[in-house]
Amino acid sequence: MAGQKRLSVIGIGAGDPEHLTLQAARRLAEIDAFFLLDKGSGKQDLAKLREDILDRHAARGYRVVRATDPGRDRDPADYRATVHEWHERRADLYEAFLRDELADGGHGAILVWGDPALYDSTIAILDAVKRRDAVAFDYEVLPGVSSVSVLAAQHRTAFNRIGTAVQITTGRRLAEGFPEGVDDVLVLLDAHCAFQRFTGEDLEIFWGAYLGTPDEMLVAGPLAEVSGQIVAARAEARERKGWIMDVYLLRRRR
Amino acid sequence: MAGQKRLSVIGIGAGDPEHLTLQAARRLAEIDAFFLLDKGSGKQDLAKLREDILDRHAARGYRVVRATDPGRDRDPADYRATVHEWHERRADLYEAFLRDELADGGHGAILVWGDPALYDSTIAILDAVKRRDAVAFDYEVLPGVSSVSVLAAQHRTAFNRIGTAVQITTGRRLAEGFPEGVDDVLVLLDAHCAFQRFTGEDLEIFWGAYLGTPDEMLVAGPLAEVSGQIVAARAEARERKGWIMDVYLLRRRR
Ligand SMILES: C[S@@+](CC[C@H](N)C(=O)[O-])C[C@H]1O[C@@H](n2cnc3c(N)ncnc32)[C@H](O)[C@@H]1O
Ligand SMILES: C[S@@+](CC[C@H](N)C(=O)[O-])C[C@H]1O[C@@H](n2cnc3c(N)ncnc32)[C@H](O)[C@@H]1O
Repeated sequence: MAGQKRLSVIGIGAGDPEHLTLQAARRLAEIDAFFLLDKGSGKQDLAKLREDILDRHAARGYRVVRATDPGRDRDPADYRATVHEWHERRADLYEAFLRDELADGGHGAILVWGDPALYDSTIAILDAVKRRDAVAFDYEVLPGVSSVSVLAAQHRTAFNRIGTAVQITTGRRLAEGFPEGVDDVLVLLDAHCAFQRFTGEDLEIFWGAYLGTPDEMLVAGPLAEVSGQIVAARAEARERKGWIMDVYLLRRRR
Repeated sequence: MAGQKRLSVIGIGAGDPEHLTLQAARRLAEIDAFFLLDKGSGKQDLAKLREDILDRHAARGYRVVRATDPGRDRDPADYRATVHEWHERRADLYEAFLRDELADGGHGAILVWGDPALYDSTIAILDAVKRRDAVAFDYEVLPGVSSVSVLAAQHRTAFNRIGTAVQITTGRRLAEGFPEGVDDVLVLLDAHCAFQRFTGEDLEIFWGAYLGTPDEMLVAGPLAEVSGQIVAARAEARERKGWIMDVYLLRRRR
């Protein structure tokens, strides 16, 4: 339909503005209005990165529509219920953006950190907006370079060894035990250094924080030897900057 | 060292030349000599994509050094031993490239399909070359958009649901059973449609072939319903083009 509202979900990479794809850069220049959620959690550096990307690639006179992320309890008793409720409140915001801020035939965009497929709720929320059926729109997803790809690149290692499997999981899950059936585990969203539980096992760790940014930190080595160093460096950096994003690969040695 | 030979391992995305990152595009323009391995397995389309990328981004008068991939038995009895032997023969080729084709201070590159961290042996082979210590060089890895990210983007889905884990594995491993402890599994390198084993379970499949290329094929749905359709479409396409690359996400329904 000519009059259909369009929305692009654009993966922008996980920290380095040079990790933007040519496709994403080109699409940014076609967008009428960008929808930005302010996280308000002191992550000004991340907001700044988004703005730099827009300044560099968006069309002259681009419009930015801001809303405040409803936020959520970071350590709730019922994790899934809490997140679901948070999704519904985000869906309200996306719906309002599509309804009120885009003309028929208009083209909006949501910038997603890293790759939209990896621990990001944007697609699930847009599906919820679609199910409500209150506003008609079509959307596409542009893939991006994820934080785990940057982690591996900076450490010059691969996720898997010959023909082996790799699991991508959260700190919350890792805290329950080392995953079954794999020797290589990529861990995101770990606020509690869950790797400390495994210092008695023969593991290597490849850790990275603020990847792709001027503050990038990298530590790699036998887990038992470098675990304490990572915990200390992480605490110090988090204190100094007010926030941290880190990710790691745990690898069972053979 | 000023006279050090340098090598860049550059992730170029999994099929769409627009998935190249700005960083990769810029680096391509700085390279003196590209090392290309001819797979000789009828994948002319893939070789063509690499050449188009070079024509568009490499510096005028760039040099290409070609070698023929030693190749390997695709269905060996001892998989790991066979692949190790193949790595050693590839290491010979990389070493010769670094020794004979790059001047001191020269900058070479190897283009890697998708993201270098995902089922690609380039980094492992370069580590083997480094261990031999016959030629001095320094290398970097530039991350890329992987086939699994493109798969998810084209199907407008994410790898994981709220807080869940995802496993990335091979067709060979999936044939041994559905991985423990996960409901979402990404499967690469599956020449035998291992998903057929699970049509009795309550699974969804998101399948894609030739992703990001003009021949892209997508099928999604309940596994029991679409499994036969995928097997038939895959066989037909493989016959017609002489090769196929496909990947899929298997998702246990809740
Ligand atoms: C909500 S997830 C989003 C992941 C993102 N979609 C991606 O592709 O990387 C956020 C988590 O990603 C990881 N992360 C994202 N960017 C990062 C960076 N620049 N450095 C280190 N970790 C990062 C951290 O584990 C963080 O807790
Ligand atoms: C040796 S692995 C390399 C993966 C690559 N490094 C990546 O990041 O996607 C090759 C496998 O990747 C998958 N693959 C790569 N490119 C693809 C494409 N364009 N479409 C579908 N599958 C693809 C297929 O499963 C194929 O067997």
